Amino acid sequence: MFKKVLIANRGEIAVRVIRACKELGIKTVAVFSEADEHSLYRNIADECYPIGEPPASKSYLNMERILKVAEKAGVDAVHPGYGFLSENVKFADECHKRGIEFIGPPTNAIDVMGSKINAKKAMKTAGVPVLPGREESIESEEEAIEVADEIGYPVIIKASAGGGGIGMNVVYNKEELVDTIQSTKSIAQSAFGDSTVFIEKYLEKPRHIEIQVVADKFGNVIHLGDRECSIQRRHQKLIEESPSPIMTEELRERMGNAAVKAAKAINYHSVGTVEFLYSKGEFYFLEMNTRVQVEHPITEVVTGVDIVKEQIKIAAGKKLSYTQDEITFRGHAIECRVNAEDAINDFVPAPGKIKYYRSPGGPGVRLDSGVFGGAEIPPYYDSMVAKIITYGLTREEAIERMKRALSEYMVLGIITNIPFHRAVIEEDNFLKGNLSTHYVEDNLCSFRKAMVNYALEAKDREKIFSEKVFHGNKKVIAIAGGLNAYITSLSNKNKDKYDKN
Amino acid sequence: MFKKVLIANRGEIAVRVIRACKELGIKTVAVFSEADEHSLYRNIADECYPIGEPPASKSYLNMERILKVAEKAGVDAVHPGYGFLSENVKFADECHKRGIEFIGPPTNAIDVMGSKINAKKAMKTAGVPVLPGREESIESEEEAIEVADEIGYPVIIKASAGGGGIGMNVVYNKEELVDTIQSTKSIAQSAFGDSTVFIEKYLEKPRHIEIQVVADKFGNVIHLGDRECSIQRRHQKLIEESPSPIMTEELRERMGNAAVKAAKAINYHSVGTVEFLYSKGEFYFLEMNTRVQVEHPITEVVTGVDIVKEQIKIAAGKKLSYTQDEITFRGHAIECRVNAEDAINDFVPAPGKIKYYRSPGGPGVRLDSGVFGGAEIPPYYDSMVAKIITYGLTREEAIERMKRALSEYMVLGIITNIPFHRAVIEEDNFLKGNLSTHYVEDNLCSFRKAMVNYALEAKDREKIFSEKVFHGNKKVIAIAGGLNAYITSLSNKNKDKYDKN
Repeated sequence: MFKKVLIANRGEIAVRVIRACKELGIKTVAVFSEADEHSLYRNIADECYPIGEPPASKSYLNMERILKVAEKAGVDAVHPGYGFLSENVKFADECHKRGIEFIGPPTNAIDVMGSKINAKKAMKTAGVPVLPGREESIESEEEAIEVADEIGYPVIIKASAGGGGIGMNVVYNKEELVDTIQSTKSIAQSAFGDSTVFIEKYLEKPRHIEIQVVADKFGNVIHLGDRECSIQRRHQKLIEESPSPIMTEELRERMGNAAVKAAKAINYHSVGTVEFLYSKGEFYFLEMNTRVQVEHPITEVVTGVDIVKEQIKIAAGKKLSYTQDEITFRGHAIECRVNAEDAINDFVPAPGKIKYYRSPGGPGVRLDSGVFGGAEIPPYYDSMVAKIITYGLTREEAIERMKRALSEYMVLGIITNIPFHRAVIEEDNFLKGNLSTHYVEDNLCSFRKAMVNYALEAKDREKIFSEKVFHGNKKVIAIAGGLNAYITSLSNKNKDKYDKN
Repeated sequence: MFKKVLIANRGEIAVRVIRACKELGIKTVAVFSEADEHSLYRNIADECYPIGEPPASKSYLNMERILKVAEKAGVDAVHPGYGFLSENVKFADECHKRGIEFIGPPTNAIDVMGSKINAKKAMKTAGVPVLPGREESIESEEEAIEVADEIGYPVIIKASAGGGGIGMNVVYNKEELVDTIQSTKSIAQSAFGDSTVFIEKYLEKPRHIEIQVVADKFGNVIHLGDRECSIQRRHQKLIEESPSPIMTEELRERMGNAAVKAAKAINYHSVGTVEFLYSKGEFYFLEMNTRVQVEHPITEVVTGVDIVKEQIKIAAGKKLSYTQDEITFRGHAIECRVNAEDAINDFVPAPGKIKYYRSPGGPGVRLDSGVFGGAEIPPYYDSMVAKIITYGLTREEAIERMKRALSEYMVLGIITNIPFHRAVIEEDNFLKGNLSTHYVEDNLCSFRKAMVNYALEAKDREKIFSEKVFHGNKKVIAIAGGLNAYITSLSNKNKDKYDKN
């Protein structure tokens, strides 16, 4: 087993990896930018080194600096977390060149999955269901028209190098087609330096359902079931659950087998996620994330498997700890991503200092967070505060617990999207499990109304819901459930803005 | 289902019950003494009422005041938690007289189990294994000598009305017998107002293993497996785990069936715990706790069943949610009771104000607590700060996670027994699962040594382990893992005291 691991990341995922290392008896090395000097992950690591200033390009994306620390600290391996350098082939190669294990998949697997066209080709060859279309770059107008006619409108134009929802455009008829291809190509060129685009069938309101796979270096591949991740805004997931409300044993087996097939086709090892779009009983390969994902905890809670520890053990050359038959699925888990953002006000990021902090707890509640009372959410990175994961033997129980956990959570001093999460988990279609990737935009008005109501209600009943806590030497009124900042807004000049929406 | 429930308790168990009620959509009413004005359970309840000053006799044990609040607030039911009035027949009766459901078992079940002699008689009749002895009050010297000779020394003299380890004395030979009976009788008379004592076989180093039972009002009784609770000091449990390291499926079935038989014999309903002593492959009825227990979370984590919600549903007249066959046991759970006490210094209570607070979290960690940063541990009640529960698919994983969780936990301003827990979970016999009810006293010296070493080590490496956090407007050095207070002691005049031990 490794003796010392460097975590080339920050925030909650750095904390998550350090926790896994501690449980495996591995020493940890943290790297931090100037903006993260007072962060939790830094404090719980065994060693920590500065790697420069924000933004990420000058520190967390600075391979040379990170590798220099890795060599100086004498680590055996580097864990890249998610984002930043986690799917960077060059970084993985540079680690290997220095005799340092990159805790992730083989570089050619990252490479194949980094190109949407190549990924789709590889999957089609392997027999994994893909969306109708052509797995080739669109080179001419004629070709585009031919393909679109063949598969039928609407179609979607995708940049092969795209990601995060950038470089994707839907076309509803022939008239729009050529222009949209041109504009997508030029966006792709400027965003990714690669203008390659391709066309595939556009599904109107699909679900996003993904399968967690785990593979060792000896060809053993298993899956850990599914995650429903349809609740997104701007292609960023906000709430995930496992299993999907529509999951059956039969469908899980079908999707699970397809995901295992996908991993085997590219000689994968490490943990990874095969994402599918699901519509009307059928599912289609979307992409594969060749790293640990933000939402991995819901799978951990339902299966009992520690995905990050398993990932580290695999990188160290261990065989899988479990066979497929040994994996059991029990109960239901939900994750809400608590971000420092103003959900009433178009989700604008709201970084800042957390003045007072109180975690939710008790039965069926897990909190993965990189913050504490006094910590700062810097403006330079994603605005995640914490992931609340709740668990129950049934979906209803997991939801009731999420509602309770959200009501207990206190993050004072910044605006968070806690009220948004509450609005979703009280919404009728969510309760019925009627979800699609358009769920958030379809219900945005009702969420906004609900959030304003929570704040007004809390303000009216301030004496009942609020509590006096000592914060420093000053007593402050602290209201759980993320409503403090909204109430302040309502009392001040912003009242109109919220009322109008 | 009930509409409103009063919680006749305080601290973490009040929080636990309120959480269960919230998840069931039931409104909650808290009662609090002057010492608990700023406590978490009060703040998360829907309504709260003062019931007097400390100590408990003037508030939490004051039936009239509590019942007056119950009537005023219009509750359907009262949850007594554990301790205080939870096993008080009169209180249960008074609730019922007012048309308020007492969330607990039938009063005659509480009554039978409140007398050690009656309980043992009932269990023997029901065919539950009991310790050799006679289920009769010892009235004469001759009788005592006869019984002791019959079962063989050592024997134990027990006050029938005893509890909490008071009124129990071991006798190793005939010479000590008569005197010990006399002294036990007089202690029993003064402590419990009842001098009845009886004799049974004394097991030298047994394990304490208990079975959680759940029974509805329709005669359905199931068990939720076992808990090993051998790690005790002065008959107070400190660390519990489920399953016991020695548990087998066969033994769990045998013990489970005996516990179900015990519950059926007294027409039990509600949740309850049948405690056994275990030695050399055999187990013997010790007592039954007719209430929810402190250590119930480890069973919840292993089975997925919410014991408190089930208890409330049963009281409301619902049938059991599960059959025995539907109960699954997965993985291993451990609970450490974090108390405000100085474990190096003979476990003396150390109440006080928590200046800074940071909860552990992440995979496999559950925290049940009634405190927060700024809260006070009053000197009038038990000194519990929190229960840390960790879970893993194996015992080893649960232990590694407990070690990690303890290292993350920050409770500044008071001394806690966190270092004691660390000492136990790193101790060799614990790791091997070699436990008995004498485990703590047998290893006390090595625990003390380990705790002093942790503090010295932390002091030496203050720069690495410590972290600067904002606390109010002052930067303080905060050290996780409960070592702050010890380090202060070491730097000051108390150094000698700790070094000598």
